[in-house]
Amino acid sequence: MKRFKRITIIGVGLIGGSIGLAAKNRRLAEEVVGVFRHRSTLNRALRHKAVDKGFMTIEEGVRDADLIILATPVHSIPVLVREAVNFAKKGAIITDAGSTKGWIVAKCENALGRHSQVSFVGSHPMAGSEHTGVEFAKADLFEGSLCIVTRTVSTDKRALGVVSGFWRSLGAKVKIMSPSEHDRTVALVSHLPHVVAFSLAGAVPGREMECSAEGFRDTTRIASSDPELWADIFLTNKKALLEAARMFESYYGKVIKAIAGGQYLATVKMLGKAKAKRDKFLYGKRR
Amino acid sequence: MKRFKRITIIGVGLIGGSIGLAAKNRRLAEEVVGVFRHRSTLNRALRHKAVDKGFMTIEEGVRDADLIILATPVHSIPVLVREAVNFAKKGAIITDAGSTKGWIVAKCENALGRHSQVSFVGSHPMAGSEHTGVEFAKADLFEGSLCIVTRTVSTDKRALGVVSGFWRSLGAKVKIMSPSEHDRTVALVSHLPHVVAFSLAGAVPGREMECSAEGFRDTTRIASSDPELWADIFLTNKKALLEAARMFESYYGKVIKAIAGGQYLATVKMLGKAKAKRDKFLYGKRR
Repeated sequence: MKRFKRITIIGVGLIGGSIGLAAKNRRLAEEVVGVFRHRSTLNRALRHKAVDKGFMTIEEGVRDADLIILATPVHSIPVLVREAVNFAKKGAIITDAGSTKGWIVAKCENALGRHSQVSFVGSHPMAGSEHTGVEFAKADLFEGSLCIVTRTVSTDKRALGVVSGFWRSLGAKVKIMSPSEHDRTVALVSHLPHVVAFSLAGAVPGREMECSAEGFRDTTRIASSDPELWADIFLTNKKALLEAARMFESYYGKVIKAIAGGQYLATVKMLGKAKAKRDKFLYGKRR
Repeated sequence: MKRFKRITIIGVGLIGGSIGLAAKNRRLAEEVVGVFRHRSTLNRALRHKAVDKGFMTIEEGVRDADLIILATPVHSIPVLVREAVNFAKKGAIITDAGSTKGWIVAKCENALGRHSQVSFVGSHPMAGSEHTGVEFAKADLFEGSLCIVTRTVSTDKRALGVVSGFWRSLGAKVKIMSPSEHDRTVALVSHLPHVVAFSLAGAVPGREMECSAEGFRDTTRIASSDPELWADIFLTNKKALLEAARMFESYYGKVIKAIAGGQYLATVKMLGKAKAKRDKFLYGKRR
């Protein structure tokens, strides 16, 4: 017997589509269905075989699902969860794939308040790319990647186990954190680098950009990400992001000060500390 | 008949080694020789077949060379050029592969002052990686890359043609610029991104770094570059780099301000402008 009868994915883009492809590939459910806002996206997802079946309403899509996954922009997740719980069956588990957790988890737990037969567990699969859309979905997107799953005082232990196990089945390594620990970590390793990459691409005029080499292209790759998606993420993780930004500004300020002062040894020291840390923690990591 | 009788490369690491491999592959010279400071690097270069022959002194290496290329750290280039001109034959052309040009070109033209039978033309092949050493040298490193060649009032036209033609033979596209135009451009597309990447890697604690995904790894890839090499580059292009830094800080400041103010539309606008520019100028570029 399959682990799940029905997995429902709300929002079938790069992430939702990859979840669908991966769950189907690994035969985790009797059926994997998607919920769409637009008929055209539904057709694209079916053409891409990312889901077995598509629905245009939450009500139809969510009915009979054991596992409901929201892979829509951050701000829409609590609203959609609020709607989904009205149609979810008893024992259903809801999770998401949003890039901020404190904001989402608090609102979703609140939405579930009265529905004790449905559980919510926050997830953040840390995989993806600067692209959007189901056309970029890949069945192996989560293989070897990290997925942070959140636990709060309200988290149901069985649901936490099911959700963690689900991501592991897709090939991800799972770390359990509190929503605020997640937000602090991800502000540093994901949200801040996006702010910096966007700012770098924004600051360099096009004429000069044409003279760039691979260093610039790599450093700004994520600046080709979707602006609305990222503005949404930044604003829902504002506090942790601004704290991460202060840490960046402090280091950057010291590097610039050493350069401005013509201090060779102080400059080497600041660069050397950064390189040593990066080499220690990232050398030999996938890609 | 080969285009060059002898090409001499002073400093046979990633860049110098790749020049050697490429020149040998394309049979541009009867012999490609290297000049080394350490016997061990000489042996590594010979093992890697990056040069046909190696010497431990400038005097022996430079003698009979038609083309002399300095691929050593920026600060050492003028000193080595000053030495090389004493042994270079009449009509010999000297070029370099340094990442800053105003500082190098002024000092090297000065060094050549009395030796009118030897020419100097500044070059900056914009290729490489975060790695160092002849082991990472590749014969195709310059294929499809950009090489900036500088022209000043003192530049000899024939030498400019020979140096430009040489880089084109290695597969590079050549742009001719003044040293100061080069420095301004490269400060924006190469030196600034290095400062930013080093600062990002420096600011994020190792524990959080372990939770990073591909975005962070790409954004900080060049922070694994050699600290002494880059401190040298930053300090010899200080003025242009600090001006580029001000442009970055201005854009970054606006993004942070929009986020701190919770302004969704202003944030989207700043990110959108950056993405549009990057997509326009870099989309579909090699890698």
